[in-house]
Amino acid sequence: MKRYVRALGIDDAPFKPHTKGETFIIGCVVRAPNYLEGVLRRNIEIDGRDATEKIISMMEGRFGVQVRVIMMNGVTFGGFNVADLKRIYEETSVGVISVVRKRPDIAEIEAALKKHFSDWEERLALMKNLPSFEYNGLFVHNVGIGEEEAKSLIKKFTVRGKMPEPIRMAHIIASGILYGESRGKA
Amino acid sequence: MKRYVRALGIDDAPFKPHTKGETFIIGCVVRAPNYLEGVLRRNIEIDGRDATEKIISMMEGRFGVQVRVIMMNGVTFGGFNVADLKRIYEETSVGVISVVRKRPDIAEIEAALKKHFSDWEERLALMKNLPSFEYNGLFVHNVGIGEEEAKSLIKKFTVRGKMPEPIRMAHIIASGILYGESRGKA
Repeated sequence: MKRYVRALGIDDAPFKPHTKGETFIIGCVVRAPNYLEGVLRRNIEIDGRDATEKIISMMEGRFGVQVRVIMMNGVTFGGFNVADLKRIYEETSVGVISVVRKRPDIAEIEAALKKHFSDWEERLALMKNLPSFEYNGLFVHNVGIGEEEAKSLIKKFTVRGKMPEPIRMAHIIASGILYGESRGKA
Repeated sequence: MKRYVRALGIDDAPFKPHTKGETFIIGCVVRAPNYLEGVLRRNIEIDGRDATEKIISMMEGRFGVQVRVIMMNGVTFGGFNVADLKRIYEETSVGVISVVRKRPDIAEIEAALKKHFSDWEERLALMKNLPSFEYNGLFVHNVGIGEEEAKSLIKKFTVRGKMPEPIRMAHIIASGILYGESRGKA
């Protein structure tokens, strides 16, 4: 019997930098390679600290039980609202992959965090010393999932280009909802 | 050279009946059979008269030029905001298909319109005497596109079940955005 593999892909809505208030993240539950089964939305605070719990809450609904891997577009949402990949893995027991096109410049991030946040050390700690690898032009963090399995899942969910479908679709939806017409690439 | 076929699928967000104000419609630009290329959102007035122009405006952006067929979940959005399929076809030159699971009961619709709207005759006129056919358990209106071509396009965009992907995806997105977690079937 064929087993279906499902991923939850997460991206945030674009917003004007240095604004306050809320923005939102979109989750797409996708069956490999690109069959959309569910869409989730959670509001998060711009530059806040609630992204982690909101992502965990996406896994608590009816879709969560079927999700085999969480894929996210980077580890920061709504500015510097940093997702705690280890806590997400610990609380959901599902491996977490963060995928971006370019290796982040941690020194630059550290400088920005120091400038804007009194709790910069806590935020930075969530972004440092995460396991990582490069694959097919992507920079990937993997928590609770081995590098080989992570590569295999990225491949399984990629249809065109480099970005896996759950993230690509979440990006298109978040941007389309916000602007009225989607733009840009995840 | 292989030519890609793209559809714009449209569904509305659910809302509480007998409320006033705005709701929204979601458009999904999908390359056959189910590759999501773009998402659009337009606000419409509940029980208003602006669905037609908002759907036409979706075709005026960067995605419209590539769309070969417009597929919509019924002809009413946000209550009895009736889309004028003929006007959409005339202004966009793209064929319009409306797909529902059950043949609508026009007598029942007429009674509801008479009860609530002074312009009931105009609204009813947009829903009556449209070309239609049944196909694979679906009731379909087709304007600006022949029955055989409409069937072939529905088939081309169907992956599982009966509902073509552009409509199914628009439904999941609209419902997920509104409720925080998608529910129900288009």
